[in-house]
Formats: sequence, C-alpha cells, structure tokens
Amino acid sequence: MNSNIKISYPGSEKVYLKGSIYPDLRVGMRKVTQMPTVTVKDGMRMETPNPSIYIYDTSGPYSDNDIDIDLEKGLPRLREKWIKERAMNDSENIGQMYYAKRGIITPEMEYVAIRENMNCKELGIETHITPEFVCKEVAEGRAVIPANINHPESEPMIIGRNFLVKINTNIGNSATTSSIEEEVEKAVWSCKWGGDTLMDLSTGNNIHETREWILRNCPVPVGTVPMYQALEKVNGKAEDLTWKIFRDVLIEQCEQGVDYFTIHCGIRLKNVKLASERLTGMVSRGGSIISKWCNIHQKESFLYEHFDDICDILSKYDVAVSLGDGLRPGSIYDANDRAQFAELDTMGELVERAWAKNVQAFIEGPGHVPMHKIQENMERQIVKCHNAPFYTLGPLVTDIAPGYDHITSAIGAAQIAWLGTAMLCYVTPKEHLALPNKDDVRDGVIAFKLAAHAADIAKQHPGAMIRDNALSKARYEFRWKDQFNLSLDPEKALEYYKTANHVGGKYCTMCGPNFCAMRISQTICDEE
Amino acid sequence: MNSNIKISYPGSEKVYLKGSIYPDLRVGMRKVTQMPTVTVKDGMRMETPNPSIYIYDTSGPYSDNDIDIDLEKGLPRLREKWIKERAMNDSENIGQMYYAKRGIITPEMEYVAIRENMNCKELGIETHITPEFVCKEVAEGRAVIPANINHPESEPMIIGRNFLVKINTNIGNSATTSSIEEEVEKAVWSCKWGGDTLMDLSTGNNIHETREWILRNCPVPVGTVPMYQALEKVNGKAEDLTWKIFRDVLIEQCEQGVDYFTIHCGIRLKNVKLASERLTGMVSRGGSIISKWCNIHQKESFLYEHFDDICDILSKYDVAVSLGDGLRPGSIYDANDRAQFAELDTMGELVERAWAKNVQAFIEGPGHVPMHKIQENMERQIVKCHNAPFYTLGPLVTDIAPGYDHITSAIGAAQIAWLGTAMLCYVTPKEHLALPNKDDVRDGVIAFKLAAHAADIAKQHPGAMIRDNALSKARYEFRWKDQFNLSLDPEKALEYYKTANHVGGKYCTMCGPNFCAMRISQTICDEE
Repeated sequence: MNSNIKISYPGSEKVYLKGSIYPDLRVGMRKVTQMPTVTVKDGMRMETPNPSIYIYDTSGPYSDNDIDIDLEKGLPRLREKWIKERAMNDSENIGQMYYAKRGIITPEMEYVAIRENMNCKELGIETHITPEFVCKEVAEGRAVIPANINHPESEPMIIGRNFLVKINTNIGNSATTSSIEEEVEKAVWSCKWGGDTLMDLSTGNNIHETREWILRNCPVPVGTVPMYQALEKVNGKAEDLTWKIFRDVLIEQCEQGVDYFTIHCGIRLKNVKLASERLTGMVSRGGSIISKWCNIHQKESFLYEHFDDICDILSKYDVAVSLGDGLRPGSIYDANDRAQFAELDTMGELVERAWAKNVQAFIEGPGHVPMHKIQENMERQIVKCHNAPFYTLGPLVTDIAPGYDHITSAIGAAQIAWLGTAMLCYVTPKEHLALPNKDDVRDGVIAFKLAAHAADIAKQHPGAMIRDNALSKARYEFRWKDQFNLSLDPEKALEYYKTANHVGGKYCTMCGPNFCAMRISQTICDEE
Repeated sequence: MNSNIKISYPGSEKVYLKGSIYPDLRVGMRKVTQMPTVTVKDGMRMETPNPSIYIYDTSGPYSDNDIDIDLEKGLPRLREKWIKERAMNDSENIGQMYYAKRGIITPEMEYVAIRENMNCKELGIETHITPEFVCKEVAEGRAVIPANINHPESEPMIIGRNFLVKINTNIGNSATTSSIEEEVEKAVWSCKWGGDTLMDLSTGNNIHETREWILRNCPVPVGTVPMYQALEKVNGKAEDLTWKIFRDVLIEQCEQGVDYFTIHCGIRLKNVKLASERLTGMVSRGGSIISKWCNIHQKESFLYEHFDDICDILSKYDVAVSLGDGLRPGSIYDANDRAQFAELDTMGELVERAWAKNVQAFIEGPGHVPMHKIQENMERQIVKCHNAPFYTLGPLVTDIAPGYDHITSAIGAAQIAWLGTAMLCYVTPKEHLALPNKDDVRDGVIAFKLAAHAADIAKQHPGAMIRDNALSKARYEFRWKDQFNLSLDPEKALEYYKTANHVGGKYCTMCGPNFCAMRISQTICDEE
C-alpha cells in the first residue's frame, strides 16, 4: 500500500481557524491567495490587492504539510480527547442530539459553525450560523452531525437544509472487482475533490478489512449499508437472514467506527407488492433483499420490528441512521408512485422513534424523477418526516443517457437541493453500467459539488457567491491562475487551457486577438 | 478532405414517414428495433414483442445507406423543388411567415409537424402538433422555421416553445486554429449526436470558404454572426465599420445560404455605459464590437439604425434574425441587471418590426444566471418580446467550474427550457478555456440533448417519455443492447459496460450475483 498519499491544491495553503467557546479548536480551511489587480492609468502601473478566499476543505490532514500520513497508523485522532472527556463526565447517551436537546454546545457543534461560515468572518458578511444555531438545529432534528465515537479521525460536518449542501460519494468493491488499496485511494481521492461523506458499499470478500482501512484513514464521516455484510454471512440467501445476524453486524460496524447506517426499515410487508405495479420494480439493493425476506416469510421485516432495538445500539455509539428508501423509483415512469410515498410515510413514523432515543436521522430519497415532479418530493418529505434532513440520489431527470448520468442527476440534484435537500448522493458517469474508477469518482464528485454549490447560491447561503465573484473578477482581469486556483478542479482547467496554446495572456485562442469581448469591454471602460 | 463521411447508429434503420397534404414528403426518422421480452413460466419460454421506437433524427442523408455522400458535391437538395415552385408562383416575399400569416401550409410546415410527433402516430398518442398548428405558431411569431432559400440541403425544423426543445452547437475556427476539414467534420459530428442547428463562428482566414463547405454539407440550419466577417474586412478595427460594409456581408451570406443571423441590434448608445457597472462587463464578442463602435462615434449603432433595411434583405431570402444579447451577463453576479434588461426591452421593439416585414425572429438570452433568477428571465422575455422564441446560452448556474461548464450550463438549460425556452445553445467542457475539439462537441451536444429532453418531459410534450420508458423497461429486463440502442450515446454506454467485464447478462459487476436489486425484484414478482 502506498503509505504516503498527500493532497495539494495550487495557490493554496492549509490554514486553521480557532474556536472561541473551545479555544483549542482548529478548523482546517483552504486559503487561496490571489494576485493583485493591475491597472495602467496615464502610464502609471497600479496594483490593487485582492482578498484571500477561504474554501471549505474536506481533505483533512492529507493537505497539511506538517502532518505525516501513514496509512498503516491511520490519521490523527482529532476528536479523541472530546469523546474521552464526555465519556468521563456522562455514563451513557454520549450523542450530539442528547447534548443539543439540553442546550449543550459540543466542540463538534462549534467546529461545524466555524467551518460553514467560510469567508463570512474575514469579509464582514453577516451570518446566522452560530454554535447556538447549530445546537438548535441538531436538537430539533433538522440537522445531523454524523460522528461515531469510534471514528475520532473524522472532522465534524453537518447535514441540514439550513447549512451548505453536502455531497456523499459511494465507493466499494463487489465480488468480482478491485483491491483494498484501490478503495482507500478512491476514498482519499473523493476527499480531495470535495466529497463530504463517503459510503463504503463493498459487497465482496474482505468487507471488514476494507472498511477498517477506509475508516482509519478517512477524514470525513463514513456510511455503510450493513445489510450487505449480513447477506454475505448467510451466503447470499436473503431468507436465512435473522435479526440476530443483523444485530451482530451492526455492533461490529459500530465498534469499527461507521458514522451512519443506511437501513431499509421503511419496507412494510403490505407495501412490497406495490412494486409489482411498476415499470422497473425495485432498484435498491438493500430494499430488494429485505423485501424478498418479507415475501418468503410473509412477515414484517425484522428491521421494522426491531427498529427500537436498532436505535438503542446506534445511540450508544452516536451512529446516525439514514432511513433507506428501498422503494425509490428506478425510472422516471415510477416516480412519485404509491410504493414510494407509502414508504415515505413509514419513514416519517420511524424518524420520531429515532429522535426519542437521541439517534440522529436522515431520510433517503430518489432516484429517478422528472423535473415537474421534484417539488412534490421535497414538500412531502418535509411534512411527512418532520423536517429531518433529506438525502437524495440525484434525482435523474431522464432515463435516456447512460454514460452521462452524472449530468442527468446533477440537473435534478441542483433543483432538489435548492428546494431543501441537505445532502446529495453523487452519481458517476458509469452509473447503470459499471463500478466507478478514480476518474469516474472525480467526475461524479465535481458534478455534484457544482450542483450543491449552485443550490447554495440559489438559497442565498451567506457568503456562497464570494467564490464565484472572485473567480469571475479574475477571469475578467485575465488573472488566469487565480481563475483556475479558485475553481473546483484547477488541474483540469489548466490542462484544457494549455491545449489551446495561449499567447501572451491578454487574449486566448478561443477568440483570437481581435475578438476578445472582455478585452474590448475593458477598453471601453478605460475610455469612459 | 475525407469525402465519404457516414453516420450509423446500432440497432437502428433510417425510415421515412410520408406527408398527407404533400404526399411526396419524406421525413427521415431513426427507427430502433427492440428484442422481445422473454419470460419463463412453468418451464415454458414466452416471447412478448416490444415496439419499435422512432427517434427524432438530425443526421440527414449521412445515415441513409442509399445515399452516396460526396462533400465536394454537397448533400441532395431536399427543398429545392418547393423553393422553385414558390418562386414561380409568387414574385416576392417567399418566407414561411408570409405564407403562415395567409394560412398557407408549406411543405416545410407539414414536414416539421410529422417530425415533431415521433412515436405518437405509431403508438396512438394524441398530439396537438398538426400542420395547421405549426402554421398558426409561425404566423403569430411563437415559432420559427429557419430556412434560407439558398440552403435547400437543410431539413426543415422548428424552434418554438410548443415544440420539442432544440439545441444549437457552435463550431468555427479562430485566427490561430483548425482547418476547414476539421470544421466540416465537427459539423457532421454535431448532427450525428443530435445538434438541431449549427452556428459557424469562424473568425480567422477563409471565413467564406469554410462556410461554403459547411453549408453545402449541412442537413440542419446554419447560423452565423455576420459581424465577425465584417470586422475581418476592416482588419479588426471596430471604428472603421460602416453600414455598407455590414450590408455587403449580409447579402454575401444570404446568397450563400445562411439560415439565421445573430445581430446585436439591441445595443443602444445610452445602454453601453451600463456595462461599466458590472463585475465582468461585456462578454459577447459581437456586442462588444458594436459597443466600441457606438462609443467611439458617440452615435446609435448602424445595426439599430438600419434594422428595417436589414429586415428587407433577410426577408428576400427567408433568413431568420436571432437578436443577439450583447449585454448578456458574463457572471452570475451580473445576472438580471439593468444592462441586460434594458437590451431586452429594445429587442422587444425590434421583434415587432421584423414581423412586420415577415422576417422570422428569435431572441438570445443569457449566459450566467443563478437558479433563483432564471424564472424572471423567462417571464420577462415572454412579455417584453411578445412570445418570440427564446434562445439561451445555458445559462450557467455557477461560475466556479471551468472545465465542467457543459454541466453548470445543462443545469440552467434544463430549467429555463422547462419554463419555455425554445432552443438551447450548447456549452462544451472547454468553455472559457479553449475552442472545442470533436470530443468536446460530443460532450456538449449530449449534455444539452439530455437537458432539452428533460425539459420536454417536464413540459409533458406528447410522446417525449416513450423513449425513457422503453429504455427503462429494457434495463429492467436485462436487454442491455436495447438499453444502449435507445440511449443518447450508444457507443459510450457500450464502452463503459464493456470495461466492467459483465458475466452472463443477468447481473453485472456493479452488484455481483447476490446483490442485483433488479434481479431480486423480478424474482419477487415471479413468486407473487
């Protein structure tokens, strides 16, 4: 295993912002330094400085030159001290929601408040995001800080519709593909490009070991679908699954440090048959497994029956539950149908039961939805699920573009995030076709980062447009490097720029010397 | 020059639908043949046929095996006979709008009505799109059929918000890049992937010759920005431009067969200075050139002053005018500002003057617009421009993703098209960075085809979802080939699929044998 993976961004340095409630907090950010604006007036050259821009940073210690990365040892355990101190003070219920309900601001809460504000403090922008606000949002279930006590390597982040829209990336091998090393590389790669959380969806051999490598080296929260490991334990026979087997898997993964579990507790026996009315039945792996179990045994699923027991386990580790939508539509034809909305109703019941046990919860959503049916999804979810955060897979707004589904889904994702979805599960160009490789992960992450950012802007999140404005100003002033350094993928932008063999810098081959609108436009301004 | 370019699509054949008002009309469509659905019940193998799907086809004669392509000779002149007959019967005013206002259905109108309906007739779907409806929409200015009498090679198509959303692709070399051969190849390539119209934006040498090759070999309408050629004639000195020079260029291009001109007539002297309040000034090349002229001469532009003369020329050839938005925002910060909307008001005046001379017209729109400001653009355009079709460039919903602007703009494009934009100008991944190569053209076209199609679905255009439903059914039934053949880019889908080394066909490496949701879901249905 290559034990010295580092991440760097051009024109950027890693900086740490300090806490005030917890003065020893160090919140990592990426600081992009800009060149000055140069103007020439009456033969005099003037330089006007441009401010540094702070960018939300998911790369953790990988981008800190002062930290040696050793994958064998794992990342520094940022949260270990806080967790230990809480364990000393309280005998049980060590979760963020427990403290939030009591109005206690944890270090995690102050950390995310600082992190969310990016450029606001530096640029004097007013913001509603304070540690107190974070605390209130978590207490009322509108936001989740996934933070297993056994994953102290993870940097606190928050998922909720009054915060920056987050994106999740899926990695993981199947029975037939890829090595552990590849998966760890993909995990770091995902963090480099901006993935906020990471789901390890491995289904093949070495599930436990793969996950261990990922967890110890992952600076963002990690989610799993525990059913996959449970099914491996019964050699793929869904009918042989039992609550005991599933429970043991949950405990094993809680002990390892998984931060959130997707569990398809919302599948009710009476609703399974609704999928047979569909064009594309069931497309959720976890959902189809538990549905098969229900159907063979003609019983309510043990996931639904034991939901309170599940929450009791999760609350001990502060693992969040992501209520999986086993009946999500797999084609736009099936969108917003009876099956989908019946399951949403059940998830609404369950989320209140989770909160009663101080388990943080969010709700998974579709999938494939045509644009004119997106709004109904969001509005219904808010009402039925009592403001719990929504976490959608896209949605894809058409089915006809396999090979380009990162785009069909980014279109739906931007819209549903604008309407209130808190986290977007990325989709790569290989969706429906193959498992993603590193390039696909990068394409998927960037497509979803830009969709999430577009939603932050449309929601008028404090300071979200600062980066756009800085980049556009750099573009207009032909500060190409600043333009690239401020972009989501500086390496790609530079690569494309270089292919065009630019001359001088005051125009480019797109327009040639006579046709550069920006240059002509500047001349007009100078003349006025 | 490679004189034998052909286009083929897997599992598809070229078919021709016939007219009824004009029985000798032959409207080319792509017919995709599907495999039957195979089911096994009680040991019996059953085959249920699946219908053929008709796909709107922009590839013209290139995909007809019975036609020999010879780039030196140019494509068959499909519309020549109609145009000649009209010239014999009428002495002047041979435009589509002229006939439409008199309730006369031209062959072009029936052609587009058949073309727009795709699968409706075959599948018994009701549709409002009849030749009479087309005629009414053109008469009232809500739709445009760009069809220069000197471009008889072009297959009729319609641009209007009550029809399928169309996409335009831009090609063309600049002073420093690419050959004529490359540009012709890109033009055919654009038609292969689904470009509905093509703009030749060449600015370098050989403008006339490049355009001639493209026109003679292009089965879709071709647009240009005549100002580029005019500027070359004055060696790049905007201040030396005159009405006479511009007029000569217009006539030259009308004679050659250009179907629509982007002209920035909406720039008023009083509005030029509004751009200086902006973050990114002016980003339209044509707009900045004429603004510079206005500023230097301190006069209204000759484009505005001579608008009626321009229309007199255009009406003789049935060339449509695309009112260029020289003051479109070049950053989301500048969106919906005074400069932009002042120009829109002027365009609203001009469009009525164009119609008075039977010149078909559409209105160009932004550019860069954050999602929450898109709706205002569309609503204002409809009111101010009296329902003339809107033709937007994206819009890009964030500025921070150079290298991925086909995606940032597809997000905005899908939304604005849903709201009523009739044609979307594609954006490639190289936007802001370099001129697109063939791969970029493909990426740009597909991103915009899927955005346009998503909008057709959201608008509930008759039959739009047929293709999605057929593809999704094929996916659910593991008819991989049908899934790919029905997709926007069968080659890419197959390529990605192959990388995953699929086994058997009843599952793939994404999930492995135990985790395929669709397979499990089918089993559940079989058991019920």
